[in-house]
Amino acid sequence: MNKRLRAHADEIVRRAIAAVQPDAAVRRALERETLTGRVVLVAAGKAAWQMAKAAADCLGARIGAGVVVTKYGHAMGPIADFTCIEAGHPVPDENSFRGARAALELVADLGADDTVLFLLSGGGSALFELPLIAPEELQDITSQLLACGADIVEMNTVRKRLSGVKGGRFAAACAPARVVSVVLSDILGDPLDMIASGPAYPDTSTAEQALAVCEKYRLRLSRHARECLMQPTPKTLENVTTHITGSVRELVAAATDACEKLGYEPVILTDTLACQAREAGSFLASIARTHARSGKNLAFLAGGETVVRLVGSGLGGRNQELALAAADGIAGLDAAVFSAGSDGTDGPTDAAGGYVDGETAAELAQAGWSAYGALENNDAYHALGAVDGLIFTGPTGTNVNDVAVALVRTTGADV
Amino acid sequence: MNKRLRAHADEIVRRAIAAVQPDAAVRRALERETLTGRVVLVAAGKAAWQMAKAAADCLGARIGAGVVVTKYGHAMGPIADFTCIEAGHPVPDENSFRGARAALELVADLGADDTVLFLLSGGGSALFELPLIAPEELQDITSQLLACGADIVEMNTVRKRLSGVKGGRFAAACAPARVVSVVLSDILGDPLDMIASGPAYPDTSTAEQALAVCEKYRLRLSRHARECLMQPTPKTLENVTTHITGSVRELVAAATDACEKLGYEPVILTDTLACQAREAGSFLASIARTHARSGKNLAFLAGGETVVRLVGSGLGGRNQELALAAADGIAGLDAAVFSAGSDGTDGPTDAAGGYVDGETAAELAQAGWSAYGALENNDAYHALGAVDGLIFTGPTGTNVNDVAVALVRTTGADV
Repeated sequence: MNKRLRAHADEIVRRAIAAVQPDAAVRRALERETLTGRVVLVAAGKAAWQMAKAAADCLGARIGAGVVVTKYGHAMGPIADFTCIEAGHPVPDENSFRGARAALELVADLGADDTVLFLLSGGGSALFELPLIAPEELQDITSQLLACGADIVEMNTVRKRLSGVKGGRFAAACAPARVVSVVLSDILGDPLDMIASGPAYPDTSTAEQALAVCEKYRLRLSRHARECLMQPTPKTLENVTTHITGSVRELVAAATDACEKLGYEPVILTDTLACQAREAGSFLASIARTHARSGKNLAFLAGGETVVRLVGSGLGGRNQELALAAADGIAGLDAAVFSAGSDGTDGPTDAAGGYVDGETAAELAQAGWSAYGALENNDAYHALGAVDGLIFTGPTGTNVNDVAVALVRTTGADV
Repeated sequence: MNKRLRAHADEIVRRAIAAVQPDAAVRRALERETLTGRVVLVAAGKAAWQMAKAAADCLGARIGAGVVVTKYGHAMGPIADFTCIEAGHPVPDENSFRGARAALELVADLGADDTVLFLLSGGGSALFELPLIAPEELQDITSQLLACGADIVEMNTVRKRLSGVKGGRFAAACAPARVVSVVLSDILGDPLDMIASGPAYPDTSTAEQALAVCEKYRLRLSRHARECLMQPTPKTLENVTTHITGSVRELVAAATDACEKLGYEPVILTDTLACQAREAGSFLASIARTHARSGKNLAFLAGGETVVRLVGSGLGGRNQELALAAADGIAGLDAAVFSAGSDGTDGPTDAAGGYVDGETAAELAQAGWSAYGALENNDAYHALGAVDGLIFTGPTGTNVNDVAVALVRTTGADV
C-alpha cells in the first residue's frame, strides 16, 4: 500500500463526513440567520434529534419550545424541554400524526415577528404526517398507485393534497410567523419539494394534475378524498427562508477543500453520479491513468450514489465495488481511487467504503485475489479486507450519499 | 433537437476524425523529419495504402522504391512504382510472407546515410510476417497457446521469436540505414511493442521468458522452433525514430481543439476509457448535469473504447449506447452528449455514433421510445434513428478508437 496516499484518503473522507454532520450543518445555517421574536423549533426526520440538539446547543434559552419527531430508536435523550416523539418509518403511524399535530399546535399562535426553526431530514415524509383522510384510505390509495405503476411525481402530486402538512402546508400554517427551514438533504440534486414531500416548500403541482392522475389510473377514491384533491396547495411561501445543507454537494465541496489543503488541484466531476459502481470505478481509473502523465497532483471528485448489480454471493457495498473496480486500471501508478458513504455503512458491512492505489492489484494477486473475480461475486469486502483496503468510520449519524475520489501524483508520470 | 448543439457535435466529430486520417497523420509526421540519402518506403497494415499514398504525394520522387502490404481489397490502385501486395488478415498467408520478403530485400543494401520510411498500421501483425519456422508449425503453436489460455503477453513473447520481422527484427535488418517509423495506433495507451508486434521497436522480453512460457503450458515444439526461441531479439535499436500518430490521444486532442474553437472550455477526462458504454453515458450525463449550474460553456472529453453487454436483439453500437444512456440524465438541460467511432462504423451499423441533447428524452417519448427500454434491448440504433440522433460519417479509412463528448452551455443553468 502507498502509505502517503492512504493517509490522504483517510483525511479527505474524515473531513468530508465531518462537514455534513447534522450538528455541523445546523450550526453553519444558524450562523447565517438572525432569529426574531419568539422562536419555536420543529424537527422531523431520521436526523431530527441531532439537528435539534445542535440548535439547542447553539441557541439555548432563545428557543421557547420544540417538537422533535424521529424514527423509533433515534432519540438519544431529552433536549431542553422539547417534546420528543418517536414514530413509524417508512410507514407512518399514529405517532407520526401525533408529532405533526403537536407541531401545528406549537406554531398556531405565532405573530409576524416570530420564528419557526424547522429542521428537516430524510425520512420526514413518513415521520411527519397528518392525513386529511382516514389513514386507512391513504394507505389504500398509496397501494393503488404502486400497483398501477404510477411514477414518483404522480404519487406525490396525489399524496401531497391528502396531507395537512405536505406540499408547503406546514409553512402555510406557520404564517404569519417566519419559517427558517434547514434541510439536511439526502436526495440527489436537492429537489426541495421532494425532500419529505416539502412541508415548507411551495407546491408546483395543480389540482387538475392530481385529478388527471386519478383518471389515468382509474383510482378508487372516497368523495372526501376527491374533494381534498381539489383544494389548492401554496404556490408561493413568502414567509420561508430555506437553507439546504449537508447535501452531497457539501460533501463534495468539503472533500474538495481537503484535497486542496493536501496539495491536490481539485476537479469536481459531478455531484449526481448514479451509474453502476464498478463502471464508475473503471471510469475514474481511466481518468487517473490519463492524468498520471500530467505532471500535476490532481484530485478528481464525484459525489452521488452508484448502484450495484447483485449477482454473486459475496459481501460488499457500492463504495467498495467502485474502489475495487479501479485497482487494475491504476496498477503501477502513483494514484489512488477511493469511495465512502457518508453514513459510514456501505452495503450490509461495517465498512464505510473502499480504497485502492497503484500497489493494490499486485497485493491482491499476492493474497490470492483478483479484482475481477471478487467483483463478479460481489465480494469486494473480503478482497479489500485482504489488502487493508477497507475504510472504517463507524456510523456517522448522517446520510448524504457518497463521495468518490481519484488522486494522481506527479511521481507516477511514467508507466 | 437543439440545432446549435447538434451542429457543434457534427463539427467536433468531423474535425477529430479528419485529424487522425492516415494521410493527415503521415503528413504531420513527415513535416517533423528530414530524410537523408536514398529513401525507400515500407508500409504494412490495413491503412498501408493510404499511408503510402500520402507519403508519395508529399515526397514524390524523393522515394526511390516502396513495398506496400495491406489486406485484401484495401489497395486502391498503383502508387508510383511501388510494389503493392494484398495479403491475409487476421491469419497471415503466403502473400504476407511475400510482402515481408520483398521489404527485407528492399532494405538489404542500404548504407548508414540512407532512410527507410516505415509506415505501420493495425493488422500489420498478420499482414507483415515471415516465420522462421514452417508456417504450419507456427499455426500449431498459436493454437496450443490459445487452447491453454495463455495471455497476450505470453503469446507475443513466444511468437516474436519465431518471426523474422517482429520484435524489432525488421528494423535490425534495415541497419545501418536509419528507420523513420510512423505508427498509426489503434491500441489504447500506445504500447509500441504490441502494435503489429513491433517490427521496428526493441523487444523487452527475454529468451528465458519465452522458454518459461513453453514450460508452463508444456507446448509441443520442434527442435528448430526451440532453437529460435533461444535467439536474442534487439534490446536497443539506435537507428529508429518513431512517430506515434493517429492515436486516440490525437483524436481527443483534435476534438478538444474543435471544442475550443466553438467557444467551449475543454476538460479532457481520459483517453483510456474502457468501461461499459451505457454506464459511461450515465457518468457523462452526471457531469453535464452538475456543470449546467456553472455559468460556463464547457466540454468534457473522453477517448477510448467502451464495451457493450449484448443481451437484447436490437441493433446498435457502443457509441450509440453511450449517447442514448445519457438522454435521461441531461433531459431539460442546454447540454448534449455524443460519441463516435473514428472508423465511421459503430457496431454492425452504418452510423459512426450517436447524439442526444436536453430535448432528446422528450422526443423519444413522443416517438414511443424510452432510452431505458431501447438499451435493455441493445436497440440504440432504432431509438436514436427515430429522433435524428445518429451520427453518420461513412467509412473513414482509419481506426483509433472513439471519442465521447459532453457539451454544457450557460443558458441551461436552471433546471
